[in-house]
Formats: sequence, C-alpha cells, structure tokens
Amino acid sequence: MPNRLSINHYSIRQWDLSQLIEGCRDLGIKSIGLWRDKINAVGLEKTRQLLQESGIEVSSLCRGGFFPYSSDQERIETIADNQRAVDEAAAIGSPLLVLVCGGIAPAGLDRSREMVREGIAGLTPYAQARGVKLGIEPLHPMFTANRSVIATLEQANTLANEFPSDTVGVVIDAYHVWWDPNVYREIDRAGSRIFAFHISDWLVPPPDFLNGRGLMGDGSIEFGKLTAAVNHAGYDGPIEVEIFNEQLWSLPGNEALSLIKKRFIEFIP
Amino acid sequence: MPNRLSINHYSIRQWDLSQLIEGCRDLGIKSIGLWRDKINAVGLEKTRQLLQESGIEVSSLCRGGFFPYSSDQERIETIADNQRAVDEAAAIGSPLLVLVCGGIAPAGLDRSREMVREGIAGLTPYAQARGVKLGIEPLHPMFTANRSVIATLEQANTLANEFPSDTVGVVIDAYHVWWDPNVYREIDRAGSRIFAFHISDWLVPPPDFLNGRGLMGDGSIEFGKLTAAVNHAGYDGPIEVEIFNEQLWSLPGNEALSLIKKRFIEFIP
Repeated sequence: MPNRLSINHYSIRQWDLSQLIEGCRDLGIKSIGLWRDKINAVGLEKTRQLLQESGIEVSSLCRGGFFPYSSDQERIETIADNQRAVDEAAAIGSPLLVLVCGGIAPAGLDRSREMVREGIAGLTPYAQARGVKLGIEPLHPMFTANRSVIATLEQANTLANEFPSDTVGVVIDAYHVWWDPNVYREIDRAGSRIFAFHISDWLVPPPDFLNGRGLMGDGSIEFGKLTAAVNHAGYDGPIEVEIFNEQLWSLPGNEALSLIKKRFIEFIP
Repeated sequence: MPNRLSINHYSIRQWDLSQLIEGCRDLGIKSIGLWRDKINAVGLEKTRQLLQESGIEVSSLCRGGFFPYSSDQERIETIADNQRAVDEAAAIGSPLLVLVCGGIAPAGLDRSREMVREGIAGLTPYAQARGVKLGIEPLHPMFTANRSVIATLEQANTLANEFPSDTVGVVIDAYHVWWDPNVYREIDRAGSRIFAFHISDWLVPPPDFLNGRGLMGDGSIEFGKLTAAVNHAGYDGPIEVEIFNEQLWSLPGNEALSLIKKRFIEFIP
C-alpha cells in the first residue's frame, strides 16, 4: 500500500499546482511536496484552499537556505528570503521547510560552512515560533561548490544537533547519500531528527548533473535497505519522490505520475 | 620552483609517450604519470629505454583495480590483469600502481566493497615481492556506481591500514576529495601512507562528469590548504597533474603542457 507516497511537485514539473493536486487525488496519493515558485504562481491563499478541498497534505516546502553570502547586503536579503520561506510554509500548512544550504562564497569553503551554521542559528527561533521545522538536506558532493557545502549526512547531523530537536533536523534524500560508507550509521544517529525521506534513483552513467535522476529501479540505489534503515531509525512519515528528469517531464503528467506510483509500489517496502 | 611537478599522460592525451617525454624534457619537467594503454602502445622495453635516455622518472602507473566481479571467470581475469599491471609497473620502474577499485557488481554495494578488500589482499604479496606499491584512490562519489565503491579518503585509509604500510597506501586526488568535511583529518591520518598527490580543479558548473576537470585556478579547489596539509602529513613526493578535459586535449601538446606548468607554479605552493 503506497500510503506513504508523497509526490514532489518538481517530479511532475509540467503540471501546475491544481493539476498536481487533481492528479494525485485521482490516484489516491495523499501527500505532496511543494516548491515556492509553484505556490507563488498560484498564490498562498489559493494554495491553501486547493489543499483543503482536496484533503491532500503537504510533506515539505522546497526550499530555504543558500546561506553563504558575498556581501552584507546579500546576507540581509538571504535572511529576509528565508523568513519569507518559513512564512509561506506556515501559510500553506507545510510542517517542514527543506534547506538547501548553499555553495561556496568568495570567503572560502570553511567560512561558507560557518555561514550556514550562522544562517540556521538565526532562522531557528523564527521557524520555531511559527511551528515550521527546518530540514538540513545534505546534497551529493557533486553539488558542494554551487549548491550545498553540506555534503554528507554526518555533517548534517552534527550541525542539526546544535539546535532544538523539535525544530532542526535532516532531510535524507537517497540520491544524495546512498554512496556514503557511513550512511547507515548516520541514518541511525539521525533518529528522531529525520524530518523527511526523499527518493529517486542514481542512473549509470548519469545523463546530467542536475536533471539526470532516475525512477526507482532504473539505477543503482538499494531502496530496500535504505528504507528499512530509515524506518528502523523511527521515521514513519511520507516518502517523497523527487525526480528531476527531462524524460519524465516530457510525458503527459498523469503518465509520469502513474509510472512513479507503480515504481514506488514495486521498489519501496 | 616546480620541482615536484609531474605530468599525468592523460592530461596531454593527444601526445604519444615519446612526445610526452620530449615535451617534458624541453620544459624541465622531471616526472610523469603513465597509463597502461599508452606504454603498451610503445612496448615496455621501448618505454624503459625512452625513460632512461631522458632521465625522466615515473611517479605512477594508472591503473589497476576494478575488483568487483559478476562471475568467477571475471574474478580470475581481474586477478590476472592486476598482476600484469604490477609487472608492467615493475618493468618500467614505476614505484606505484594506482588502484581505481571498481564500481558496483550485481552482488550489491556492500559485497562489492568486500570484493575490493579481497582483491587488494590477493594482490598485495604479489606487488610486495616486486617492489611495487599499491595506491588506493578514493574517487568522487559521482563515480561510486561505475568506477569506485571507495568514495572517501576515510574509507581508503581504513582499508589501506589492513595491509603492510610499505606496500599499500592511498592516492589523494584533490578533485575527488576536496569537498569532504573530513578531508584534513584524513590527510593527517594517512600520513606515511600517502603514496601520491594528484591535482586538477573542480569547475563550476562541471561541463562533464568524466572529462570536465579544470586547470588549477579555474575552479573551486583550495590548493594552498590541501597541498600544505599533504606536505604536513609528511608527503614530499611528486605532485601529479591529472586533468581530463576536452579543451586541453584539443590544444597542441606543448601549449597544453606550458599552460599546466604555468598554473602549477601559480597555484601550488
């Protein structure tokens, strides 16, 4: 039973929000992961209304973060933008804001990692006051330079542990962490700080750095083991399918959605 | 003074071995890293003769490894091929055979990592008897599926430590390890097991998975810090420039070589 299946909007990017909600309702999918550009295209009030009418829940909102800055001006703008992201999550009833922490600022890699810590420290009370959780998502090391200086689950856990456990945790995306020799130890360590579990497959060879993710079963990720480990660590929330793939985006939305649901049932225990 | 500069043959792949040796001699470069296909194209005897005449030394031979197998037949062939690689290293006077350990076999990721351990265990006495060192090279996690299930320096160190320190160590390639939050701790831990230090830069965004490496200074790697750490750990051998880049390969060899030497002097302390 795909009760835990959640569809990240960017997996079916060809659809707008109302199409996504309708398509998911038709297939009995109970949860979706949203993106700020897609909800702002519709408006927050309309988003909330569409969700309420459909009974579909939001698993996460993508995304806050990009904390490293090159100037004080940029730092101030980033803080404001992250606060807006928290506000938007609260407005649409998303329990979680996903943090893609940002790449390397001119000040260098170490300092950029400190900037991430400072950014999260500043955002945490704001999010806590609004009942929105912050999920630090380690990104695959091929994105360290330009998207996330947080590259491993070990690093994300260590960072999250500095903050209140009701507000700051981690997002485990199979695509980003599957290769890590320490991943099972770190999933266990994350425990109740696991705020989300995202999935897509690693194709061999990958057709593209950014948009070359695969459907579960088409690549080399061992979803049975990873899902079992995440469950064992205590996570029982939605499992969000987040596939960036040009081929999937070229299909009619309902075909793409059916395909995802089918693979979810087949590969996710 | 670029006394430590070594040129990996694949950085100037447009040249054959005698061109490479002549070009390096002309620029006062004293060391080169070789590849099996390039030396076998010339012959081992001729390779040794060219090296002897030029006075140029070999820093490493690429490559052995690819230990994970899908059948007993493949396992036997891999053992034989790795022994041939050791023989070739010994024949041309290379102190080091670089091990690119191989991707995921059908038996799965964990078992593939065991196959790497077993492969190195089997090869070590053979290499030790012939005075050839084996360097485990962790590859960037974007290559875990198809090239190296050894993805971090921590993992390579832990593996190397199971074997005699005069024969089994690690190859630290900046391109593969720079992103790792534990890299400085692990460089320090590697100590006298550092058998080679390779460099090229991480371009943003990377133009290609395999052949999109950059010249030092064109990307985001902090060579000053990394080189200092490797030196501090006790490594004082050649620093091998290994750049896979279509643009560099399209230049006349001597232009590419001059460019590399210039950047080496500028960016490697």
